Amino acid sequence: MLPVIAITPGEPAGIGPDLAILTAQDNYDCNRVYFADPEMLHQRAQALGININIEVIQSAAHIKEPRDNTMYVVPVELASSATPGVLDKSNAQYVLECIRLAVESQQNNNTHALMTGPIHKGVINEAGIKFSGHTEYLAELSSGTPVMMLAAEAEKLRVALVTTHLPISQVSNAINKENLKQTISILHNDLQKKYGINKPHILVCGLNPHAGENGHMGMEEIETISPVLENMRQQGMNLTGPLPADTLFTPKYLKDADAVLAMYHDQGLPVLKHVGFGHAINITLGLSIIRTSVDHGTALDLAATTHIDNGSYIAALETAVHLANNQTITTAT
Amino acid sequence: MLPVIAITPGEPAGIGPDLAILTAQDNYDCNRVYFADPEMLHQRAQALGININIEVIQSAAHIKEPRDNTMYVVPVELASSATPGVLDKSNAQYVLECIRLAVESQQNNNTHALMTGPIHKGVINEAGIKFSGHTEYLAELSSGTPVMMLAAEAEKLRVALVTTHLPISQVSNAINKENLKQTISILHNDLQKKYGINKPHILVCGLNPHAGENGHMGMEEIETISPVLENMRQQGMNLTGPLPADTLFTPKYLKDADAVLAMYHDQGLPVLKHVGFGHAINITLGLSIIRTSVDHGTALDLAATTHIDNGSYIAALETAVHLANNQTITTAT
Repeated sequence: MLPVIAITPGEPAGIGPDLAILTAQDNYDCNRVYFADPEMLHQRAQALGININIEVIQSAAHIKEPRDNTMYVVPVELASSATPGVLDKSNAQYVLECIRLAVESQQNNNTHALMTGPIHKGVINEAGIKFSGHTEYLAELSSGTPVMMLAAEAEKLRVALVTTHLPISQVSNAINKENLKQTISILHNDLQKKYGINKPHILVCGLNPHAGENGHMGMEEIETISPVLENMRQQGMNLTGPLPADTLFTPKYLKDADAVLAMYHDQGLPVLKHVGFGHAINITLGLSIIRTSVDHGTALDLAATTHIDNGSYIAALETAVHLANNQTITTAT
Repeated sequence: MLPVIAITPGEPAGIGPDLAILTAQDNYDCNRVYFADPEMLHQRAQALGININIEVIQSAAHIKEPRDNTMYVVPVELASSATPGVLDKSNAQYVLECIRLAVESQQNNNTHALMTGPIHKGVINEAGIKFSGHTEYLAELSSGTPVMMLAAEAEKLRVALVTTHLPISQVSNAINKENLKQTISILHNDLQKKYGINKPHILVCGLNPHAGENGHMGMEEIETISPVLENMRQQGMNLTGPLPADTLFTPKYLKDADAVLAMYHDQGLPVLKHVGFGHAINITLGLSIIRTSVDHGTALDLAATTHIDNGSYIAALETAVHLANNQTITTAT
């Protein structure tokens, strides 16, 4: 049976709807159900010059086998009609509602993975809704502790983060044995359960340059990171580190690694996004649901055009299918 | 006239002497003079099975045109004979003396650039000499404020650093308007003078993730970085930033950039060393002398073997030649 992927095209003024429409007729070994405003999708397809049926279904449970030239849509109504390229805060609640319903559909086993398109954090906050991002919202709707991972699957590079959107001055204080241990557990567990990797090999960055060089450039490796790694190795995990971040991303280390754990955002993501330019994706680990995402923004200036790089969208969809299939196998056995 | 490159093979127990010997007969459009113990080089050549004349000259001023199969060596005597692979702290002073004489030769205009092989910081400190690295020692011998830059010239990527070997918890406090301005001035000036780039385009990273996202993740961009960039743009410099480090290293930005300025070590070097694996080099800017270096260590376990990747050594030598030629042109005009 083909897995059913819930797709939220995201911000209606951005390129999310375009990506959904432009790729809808390609085959990715899955059924897709879109959580969006059907009329908006219809108008956008017209603007793109694409002739496609928008078939409204009341629940993802009602999805049929894929039919040529058809998008199955669980309808969510826009507050105001969307103008490509123009943000409208009256539609902020719509964006969140699409995500909420898509999560619910996975919790009800009507869909098997969620793939999210780009949203615009700023306009949601402008609408008076306290919102710090997809990941945090999903954690609120679902259960578990989210761990952010980015991947360039074509190059077999995956980078998970211990801390995410923090000023650099707060990074050291934000890392302690407890949350480091929790992050490694989640990463290890999800590489096993969601990715189907039996004994994952994880490379762990030090926090400081040269991984602290034996305490000459910071003590966090000696006091926090190494003890946690040692403890988790004794539990049978295959962890290498703490390694200097500037030698870790070389073939010697990467060749047999399943994932890299970076201590903070700019330690791990510049190389990931350089390597995976145009097809990097974001995966939220640690939740009860499966979720992948494009790694780019709403690109308002490109909305309703066909000049859109769909590399990240397709990669996120393919990974959603892959993870959904693994999950089905795990659940079935 | 061919430029004369002073080469310090560095730690005698490491692979520096091997790299010097193994590449000595290849042509790199320069004359080379080695600052090392001639007897050590002779023994090492024998160990490698290479037949080469070691011609001792008392000063680099006495170097003649390149002769086949000959290494010109300004002699510096080892305290104890060197065993490949075995560090000996009694030779620490020798390592420093080679560098000192090589710098002096450039100050006397007998050589035109210095290229340094790998040294071992630990054994120099063990010998009771306070030593924090090549860069700081060169600054002491020469004049100016050193700025560390790494380059992968084959990929046209150069990354200079505002802060270098500091614990991450100290990075934010270590950056202020004065030193940021100074670093940018040195980088800009040396790209012009040493690299011969008329109007360098420099990309500048923010300090925080997403370059602070308008103050939501740190204020350093707003309070320190942006005002400095604005001020220096008014002086005519072509500076782009502060940019998020994880979007900066993508073709859109890199395609017309001459250098990247990262705020700290692990923000810029992981991607540089990933991209330039095997041929990345280190260049010290801001000094009155020209200096390039391999970006790797002494690799003690490979000493006196021929299984050595010489990519970084050759790249450092080629850049030394390039910079020496530019300097000569600048000085002559």
